[in-house]
Amino acid sequence: MRILITNDDGIYAKGIEVLYQILSKEHDVYVVAPETEQSAVGHAITFLDPLRVKEVKRNGVFFGYAVNGTPADCVKLAIRELMKPLPDLVVSGINHGANVGENVIYSGTVSAATEAAMLGFPSIAVSIDAYPARDYSAPIRFLPRILKLIEGRTFPKGVSLNINFPHCPAEEIRGIKVARQGHLKYAETYDRRVDPRNRVYYWLCSQTAEYDPDEDTDSYSIQQRYIAITPIHYDLTHYPSLDLLKGWFYEEVALECKGKQWAGA
Amino acid sequence: MRILITNDDGIYAKGIEVLYQILSKEHDVYVVAPETEQSAVGHAITFLDPLRVKEVKRNGVFFGYAVNGTPADCVKLAIRELMKPLPDLVVSGINHGANVGENVIYSGTVSAATEAAMLGFPSIAVSIDAYPARDYSAPIRFLPRILKLIEGRTFPKGVSLNINFPHCPAEEIRGIKVARQGHLKYAETYDRRVDPRNRVYYWLCSQTAEYDPDEDTDSYSIQQRYIAITPIHYDLTHYPSLDLLKGWFYEEVALECKGKQWAGA
Repeated sequence: MRILITNDDGIYAKGIEVLYQILSKEHDVYVVAPETEQSAVGHAITFLDPLRVKEVKRNGVFFGYAVNGTPADCVKLAIRELMKPLPDLVVSGINHGANVGENVIYSGTVSAATEAAMLGFPSIAVSIDAYPARDYSAPIRFLPRILKLIEGRTFPKGVSLNINFPHCPAEEIRGIKVARQGHLKYAETYDRRVDPRNRVYYWLCSQTAEYDPDEDTDSYSIQQRYIAITPIHYDLTHYPSLDLLKGWFYEEVALECKGKQWAGA
Repeated sequence: MRILITNDDGIYAKGIEVLYQILSKEHDVYVVAPETEQSAVGHAITFLDPLRVKEVKRNGVFFGYAVNGTPADCVKLAIRELMKPLPDLVVSGINHGANVGENVIYSGTVSAATEAAMLGFPSIAVSIDAYPARDYSAPIRFLPRILKLIEGRTFPKGVSLNINFPHCPAEEIRGIKVARQGHLKYAETYDRRVDPRNRVYYWLCSQTAEYDPDEDTDSYSIQQRYIAITPIHYDLTHYPSLDLLKGWFYEEVALECKGKQWAGA
């Protein structure tokens, strides 16, 4: 396959180098990644500033393009401008830290895969549950197998795969779980400090306090040493609430249904 | 109600001033908004840098706190640290430009509402379909009515409301539609230029080429001069694909079901 690689930890991160090594053995790999760390940028894109691209060569092996933007920028720019022919698959990662539960919405790694899906390309986000990760043996061993199972499949429109590896040696992995996005409870605080000029500033402090106990979730699966695979998409509509809201705004909606002009307030 | 106001166009934008004027007549309003424009930041949060807060007073009337961060930062910092007592409702906007269709995932305005929902607070995002907006008569007239219909309601867990106003005079508004997130097709390109030092840079150019023709969508509704209200949430799981993926990874999942150790690759 021809694979576009990106990440959110930046082109100099260990995770993208490991990903490059795993994928370049069997595939034609093209790297476009952020020049600097873009953790927790979510689905940010850059249009108030211009983007610049520069060539990066690491260790005499790894070759790629660094962009002064976000993961979503990298995918958009690669597909719209830089990469010809276009990719068969877009892979984002390997992220330091799991992207499970509520974390998913903050994730630059996931947003790159989502952007690819929006542009109509099959895509996966790959993360490992450690910050920093020391042991990459699980993705090194199992990611090629997962790619083989994906290759040639038709991805549902707009859907990408969010893949999370537990941080344990490959031989301790118990298998794959197809899981839904679960919940994570955080102990989240701001650390209030005073700078040398007597001005107040705040650091965000965040610790995972509690994992989702539901067995069909991403966070539970990786806790149990399964590789979690979650189909994700970018339609944020909460469908079960549509009817509820029609009730809340009943008169306003009903008036229109009768073909009357809405008087409103 | 006690209402926390924020936005993504920044504390000096016209939209948040209009929102302040609308809401402060009947409610106790507290403003915490980004110091600078944060359009298209998506659900970014800041933890690699510290946050600073400064007081802003505009026109002798509008009073608020400016934060050197994103809309999601503003909500998190306000709720975790700055605002006591806590809000009954969080309102983000009024954004210049509709947040409908695929745009929703890029929106800083919407991410502020989503962040509030994640923290357990009722929240709405408000946008108007023009950039820049000249006529705010529709939100000025109808937003208080919408707030009355919302007040005291129990929001479903994790759900916020994404409200989009057409850009037309209040008397031309036809009513409210409860709508799902639709699709927008873009003509998206990069404009490649060369700077005075002979280095290449790219500007993202994006024009809406086609609105969703489906009548139950947000984008169609505002085109038809209805106020679109969409329930949104932060669970990105694409539930219809869970079974499909179990098929793709059948053997790997099945092995585990039989209680066997997974051999993997």
